[in-house]
Amino acid sequence: MLSSAARQAITIAKTIKAQQSMTLTPENILAARQGADTGNPFEMPADIQLKIVNTDTVHGEFYLLPTHQSTVLMFLHGGAYMTGTVKSRRQLAVNLAQQCGYDTFAVDYRQYPEAKHPAAQQDVEAAYDYLQSHYDHVVIFGESAGASLALSLTLSLLSKGKRLPAKVSVFSPVILQLNVLTSEFTRQERDPMLLGAGEPVQYFDEPASQSPLVSAIYGDYHGFPPLQINCGTEEVKYDDAVILNDICQKAGVSVSFKAWRDLFHVFVLFDMPESRLALQQIGAFLKVA
Amino acid sequence: MLSSAARQAITIAKTIKAQQSMTLTPENILAARQGADTGNPFEMPADIQLKIVNTDTVHGEFYLLPTHQSTVLMFLHGGAYMTGTVKSRRQLAVNLAQQCGYDTFAVDYRQYPEAKHPAAQQDVEAAYDYLQSHYDHVVIFGESAGASLALSLTLSLLSKGKRLPAKVSVFSPVILQLNVLTSEFTRQERDPMLLGAGEPVQYFDEPASQSPLVSAIYGDYHGFPPLQINCGTEEVKYDDAVILNDICQKAGVSVSFKAWRDLFHVFVLFDMPESRLALQQIGAFLKVA
Repeated sequence: MLSSAARQAITIAKTIKAQQSMTLTPENILAARQGADTGNPFEMPADIQLKIVNTDTVHGEFYLLPTHQSTVLMFLHGGAYMTGTVKSRRQLAVNLAQQCGYDTFAVDYRQYPEAKHPAAQQDVEAAYDYLQSHYDHVVIFGESAGASLALSLTLSLLSKGKRLPAKVSVFSPVILQLNVLTSEFTRQERDPMLLGAGEPVQYFDEPASQSPLVSAIYGDYHGFPPLQINCGTEEVKYDDAVILNDICQKAGVSVSFKAWRDLFHVFVLFDMPESRLALQQIGAFLKVA
Repeated sequence: MLSSAARQAITIAKTIKAQQSMTLTPENILAARQGADTGNPFEMPADIQLKIVNTDTVHGEFYLLPTHQSTVLMFLHGGAYMTGTVKSRRQLAVNLAQQCGYDTFAVDYRQYPEAKHPAAQQDVEAAYDYLQSHYDHVVIFGESAGASLALSLTLSLLSKGKRLPAKVSVFSPVILQLNVLTSEFTRQERDPMLLGAGEPVQYFDEPASQSPLVSAIYGDYHGFPPLQINCGTEEVKYDDAVILNDICQKAGVSVSFKAWRDLFHVFVLFDMPESRLALQQIGAFLKVA
């Protein structure tokens, strides 16, 4: 049975669904980002040091732990390559930092309307290279569009023969930009947050591209590092997770997949018992032995 | 439990799977059509009159019953817009003619490599217009690519405000040309006949097109005539049928959907008890009251 906090979260998710419009104007998008920031205030814990990075190619912020570790967690927020922000996900990122015991770097990648594909993919790879040069190991967490970026980054590294992240954990991944997988239709009513079966996000000029950088369903996962997949059973993106798990099993990846009963897209952003359990499991998975 | 004939059919289906190559040369395609014709000999029943039609725009053959009826069944064979033939499906088409009690016209539409999209769609619509001018009612049956053509034709008629078929029955429909729906992955081993998750068919230059003439998943089904969907639970095209049923229910279509347990893509082409039951049900559905 869901916790009462989870039931409340579903009520909030429904208001997000009700407000959803499939084509957003640039003004609406900027307002949505502003709203995400102000709607998710977070007081940084006293023992976590916030450090902003702004080089020519790397943008984002570190959440540094009191004691130095040789592994860093790269955090990739979601928001349809459009409305997400680093600031609005600070609570989740810092929670993960504390769960893992790793310094965490949240990447502030370029999104629509300021930029289009492959700007975000380039920014994420630049941030990855930067982190690799400063730490012994990188592990990655991404949610929604950030999960897609975690997959496309790792597939890109694989194809280039570059050093891979030690672990990758994705929450509610999107692996096909066309929004036509089965759950987009069959879970349209059940999903409390997302409308489903809509137009592709505006960030991609060619959402039907078979490039794995666009849609990770087209990736070759042989040699992919250990992968953890989480999603909710009630989300229109459910089949993205099902297919990803299936492809990875076939490719011999050490993959684990948990579909959280009765829960929705990136529910881990909400403070509730189910999220705390998920955070523990993600933290345990991302630990580098 | 499957009949022993169905078990034998699965063995044959596996040989088809083993021979499957994802990109066929024009020579191979013509040889496959020849093989389909010689491999499926059929003696026309004495009371069925075979009548070939070859006008400028309409190509195909009638299977005429002894007594004239005012309804005609339009039969659309499959074969990936490539390897199917009218002749190799005569047994199925004539069986349906007898089940319905309707004259039946099997459309010999253009395929790859002789032609590309929208040649087949044009041929099927021309045949439909021809049948409408000679009969009071048209009902349609299509299997595999022929099922896709039955859907795209009816969607085209709907969008043009033309007279609709009275009933449409599709067997193992394909509603997305990209071969990326869930069952393409999760049923890859289970499907005895089709490999799954392969390249799009060569007939379409733009398989990612959002035109409902290419992928019926993009159609608007409001006002669609009564639709019957059959498929096997073990086929990589299973989710095509699931989604079609879902979209049609949402659009208020009088749709019925049967997923045949443990059976495969267009199993109705094989002579076995399960096929005879399916033929009875299709015949009963296609009767115009």
